Amino acid sequence: MDISKYRVSNGSDFVLADYATRDRGPYKKKTHALKDQKANTAIIASEQDKMYAQDHWGVIILTQAMDAAGKDGLIKHVLTGVNPLGTQVFSFKQPSAEELDHDYLWRINQRLPERGRIGIFNRSYYEDVLVVKVHNLIASSKLPDQLITDDIWDQRYRQIRDYERYLAENGFIIIKFFLNVSKEEQKERFLSRIDNQSKNWKFSTADVRERGHWDEYMDAYEKAIQNTATEDNPWYILPADRKWYARTLASEIIAKRISALGNKYPDVGEEKLAELEIARQQLEDE
Amino acid sequence: MDISKYRVSNGSDFVLADYATRDRGPYKKKTHALKDQKANTAIIASEQDKMYAQDHWGVIILTQAMDAAGKDGLIKHVLTGVNPLGTQVFSFKQPSAEELDHDYLWRINQRLPERGRIGIFNRSYYEDVLVVKVHNLIASSKLPDQLITDDIWDQRYRQIRDYERYLAENGFIIIKFFLNVSKEEQKERFLSRIDNQSKNWKFSTADVRERGHWDEYMDAYEKAIQNTATEDNPWYILPADRKWYARTLASEIIAKRISALGNKYPDVGEEKLAELEIARQQLEDE
Repeated sequence: MDISKYRVSNGSDFVLADYATRDRGPYKKKTHALKDQKANTAIIASEQDKMYAQDHWGVIILTQAMDAAGKDGLIKHVLTGVNPLGTQVFSFKQPSAEELDHDYLWRINQRLPERGRIGIFNRSYYEDVLVVKVHNLIASSKLPDQLITDDIWDQRYRQIRDYERYLAENGFIIIKFFLNVSKEEQKERFLSRIDNQSKNWKFSTADVRERGHWDEYMDAYEKAIQNTATEDNPWYILPADRKWYARTLASEIIAKRISALGNKYPDVGEEKLAELEIARQQLEDE
Repeated sequence: MDISKYRVSNGSDFVLADYATRDRGPYKKKTHALKDQKANTAIIASEQDKMYAQDHWGVIILTQAMDAAGKDGLIKHVLTGVNPLGTQVFSFKQPSAEELDHDYLWRINQRLPERGRIGIFNRSYYEDVLVVKVHNLIASSKLPDQLITDDIWDQRYRQIRDYERYLAENGFIIIKFFLNVSKEEQKERFLSRIDNQSKNWKFSTADVRERGHWDEYMDAYEKAIQNTATEDNPWYILPADRKWYARTLASEIIAKRISALGNKYPDVGEEKLAELEIARQQLEDE
């Protein structure tokens, strides 16, 4: 599958409207996609196992999207089947009082994966240039007034670029997904959450209020991606109106990125092999 | 007292040998210095109290030095008298297995102070361009081999500049002290630790081995300071052969930097004042 058309590695000429919300790629049938997705999950599981043994690289999978775009379902479907010992999911919601009492990356740093593991961020520090920007929450933040300057968003984009570069240089790759859902599709999904009693818990009236800021959010996403899509830490724009396609695509991208790390089970030297033989002898002599 | 001569805010022309290890500044008598130091500690305590009430700014005091330069004593003498509720000291020693399993700033991020507080770092992330460089510990680190490039130290200096700029932009100022002790004075202090039974616990034979790398350390410090002394996050080179002078100087610098933040007790508005009056009435009516 050609993943390059979904990849943004040079943000400067990124226009969100150029990216489809509805796509099916090469798949005529959904079942074919599902088969590929399962194969990809198996690759991710096997590569993660080697990465865990090797203990050098770490992976961060970061998902951002409007409500009901399918973040939770994507994580569930693509990553179920990977050893939970090597995966950690963190959802970043409204920051706590303790979190607000620190720099905005502090709560992220508390949850960075160890080497050998996959850390999955359900939302992330990008919220600090998305919801915080759309609702101007920075004015009521604990930041000293004189630091709330006109160029604060550009400053934050730069801080995020620096942060991601630092992580990459220290062995932690970041796979950044934007689930690109259309406004129409979100409406359908909200209505289904209201109509379907078993989905009621997923819906909050606040979701409709947020929907009222759709254009501002699209603008904030576009600017964030323009300013933080780089060769080393690209964004992937997943058409999200068809959940199965977004999931298959994400699985393909994760499988390719993690395989590219070239993890191998550590070589066992002659000395260690000799030790193993002695241990075998001891066990057999018991 | 003129602190500008100890301040390095443009690292590019920094030469460590230009800085004195022995100085007494304007003080003819040590007792005068001690009096100023106590006055400064009182200023720090009072400013910290306002900073805590305001809850916007945070302060990081970072100390780096060769063994026996007087880091512990400086922290003890300058900061005893400041409310422990608003101060936290962290000593960064040899990293644990868990810490090595993360990026090198991870353990620092775990210990960043909250807003309103002073975090004191006894050693810091600078160790990752000092001891790690002198002993080439990076070769045995968990970093993926392909990331251990020839320019890794320059990369780290840049990462540190970015990190400190990020913290400053988010309301956390960093006061960086290098306690500049001479090789001769270190020898005297080591001998005193060996001769004086009550100081024996402070001495380890490893300290003498590290002393054997003196020139390499001086070179590593010089390069680190050259590459990380900036206008916003300067280094202060404290002449450390006279402990009392280093302490007085540090107290002066901290008092000036923290006062410059302009913290004030939060204004209490009319509404709150009315609430307080009601509360008073309720208490009196009990």
